[in-house]
Amino acid sequence: MIRIAIAGYGNLGRGVLAALRQNPDMQAAAVFTRRNPASLVLEDKNIPVVSLSEAPAWKDKIDVMILCGGSATDLPEQTPAMAQYFNVVDSFDTHARIPAHFKAVDDACKQAGTVGLISVGWDPGLFSLNRLYAGAVLPQGKDYTFWGKGVSQGHSDALRRVKGVKDARQYTIPVAAALERVRAGENPELSTRQKHTRECFVVLEPGADPARVEQEIKTMPNYFADYDTTVHFISEEELRTEHAGIPHGGFVLRSGVTGKGSKHLIEYSLKLDSNPEFTSSVLVAYARAAHRLAQEGACGCKTVFDVPPAYLSPKSGEELRAALL
Amino acid sequence: MIRIAIAGYGNLGRGVLAALRQNPDMQAAAVFTRRNPASLVLEDKNIPVVSLSEAPAWKDKIDVMILCGGSATDLPEQTPAMAQYFNVVDSFDTHARIPAHFKAVDDACKQAGTVGLISVGWDPGLFSLNRLYAGAVLPQGKDYTFWGKGVSQGHSDALRRVKGVKDARQYTIPVAAALERVRAGENPELSTRQKHTRECFVVLEPGADPARVEQEIKTMPNYFADYDTTVHFISEEELRTEHAGIPHGGFVLRSGVTGKGSKHLIEYSLKLDSNPEFTSSVLVAYARAAHRLAQEGACGCKTVFDVPPAYLSPKSGEELRAALL
Repeated sequence: MIRIAIAGYGNLGRGVLAALRQNPDMQAAAVFTRRNPASLVLEDKNIPVVSLSEAPAWKDKIDVMILCGGSATDLPEQTPAMAQYFNVVDSFDTHARIPAHFKAVDDACKQAGTVGLISVGWDPGLFSLNRLYAGAVLPQGKDYTFWGKGVSQGHSDALRRVKGVKDARQYTIPVAAALERVRAGENPELSTRQKHTRECFVVLEPGADPARVEQEIKTMPNYFADYDTTVHFISEEELRTEHAGIPHGGFVLRSGVTGKGSKHLIEYSLKLDSNPEFTSSVLVAYARAAHRLAQEGACGCKTVFDVPPAYLSPKSGEELRAALL
Repeated sequence: MIRIAIAGYGNLGRGVLAALRQNPDMQAAAVFTRRNPASLVLEDKNIPVVSLSEAPAWKDKIDVMILCGGSATDLPEQTPAMAQYFNVVDSFDTHARIPAHFKAVDDACKQAGTVGLISVGWDPGLFSLNRLYAGAVLPQGKDYTFWGKGVSQGHSDALRRVKGVKDARQYTIPVAAALERVRAGENPELSTRQKHTRECFVVLEPGADPARVEQEIKTMPNYFADYDTTVHFISEEELRTEHAGIPHGGFVLRSGVTGKGSKHLIEYSLKLDSNPEFTSSVLVAYARAAHRLAQEGACGCKTVFDVPPAYLSPKSGEELRAALL
């Protein structure tokens, strides 16, 4: 049994606990939290809830710690700190800061002799893998990544910061016509506006002016100004009943050419009812890999690019070759 | 420069030569053939053409040999034989015989200290990888593989063995309605007939009876009897002009559930103008990986499941993390 610890008990942490129940070779050994542990009541009363500050004392009782905090402030601090004691896996997803995060985790792991697997999930993660495989196989070609249809947490937060907005949900939607042009092998150059649209469902504060709010949203730099954005004003009730889920997904395509002009299209897509539960499931599969790498004596920071696919599966090499090859 | 040898110069061997031109870190060092080398004229006159029996003398001039023969009789003999001298990569695709082939290549590699990568291509190969990743991430779910639309060499050969058939081409076509049921998350149990249809384009010998030929095709066990099969009789001219290509492709899907019933769909698909050129491109990327594994001191037989994705790319870890993660 691989003993897994969960650090942080939000959507992702709950998803990891659920995913562990689907993997009989792993068990939840502890949940670490920055909150008062007594305030956190788990469905499964057998799993200890412990203050994150006490984690070092659990060094010999945990095989892999999965860090379930956010990329903005939690993981840059927690992943290197915990790598001093544990093999760690995180879903760090701030693309521009991956090199710095990699370095910090790598230093901590090498000092402690642990394995750190960072940026695990679907993007970065499974989408990255598909970009790598497709690019290696079709060196002469062009990559496309589309996201959605799905809820963007960052854009929903941006909507909530607009004055007069009580609550809101933003969906990122790939433009079907752009996807079709890529699939047709046109290799188009696509602008930001041509790739995705943004659809907003907004609950207004009493007395707020919808025209002003809509204008402010549609012209917001970085978040909405470069997109065709639709704003719907709805009731709090409708937001709660119709937009409670956190679905997401997307597409990675590579269109390439071989020989004297043979065209090829590689397409990977995800359609996810629950973004955090799916991300958690990826984290758990890579926790198994981190454990195997550590058992082999590996140490240092790694990403999905460095992990042999077989390490994700509980099956043996023989079983995998017989059943899946 | 990684020095690549090509053993066997059919569609696959020609595809490897074309793929090498797209990979500036590799070069074609020699083409080995069982034919009279003088009978084989390459576009690039700088590449030596050598009798396969002389291959052992090239031991120190080749980093990886890519075996481009057929799975029925060539590879079971050639891959283990050549693994005594070279790191080898092949596209062995007889699923049921993979365990025996793996063992033979593994024994040869371990004795010689070489690396053997077998069953590289798209199925087995990229499709296998997708079955593995998807199954590891969604342990509670169901796999589906659909092939086509594409030319099946085996089924085209079967048509040509029917009395009265002069030439023929067979297309395997996935049933769109079945694909849609899988995408909708229905997790259907699909019979052979429900998954694929078979479309045959047949040129008759003069005087052959079309009704008898059609009947014989449609009732042929293993190949056609279990499918809805359509037979079109066409002229030799039409076969040559309209059915000269070797396109193929297909779909790997996994539909799974997490948590309290969130549904997820992972879909991977290929649409290939040229089946052999694409397979060759996969072989070349894995030749790079075989070279790296050998340089690290690895030896023995491996499959795509054992190869860290980063080994397929000429880019460094830093470059990959910055550009693709």
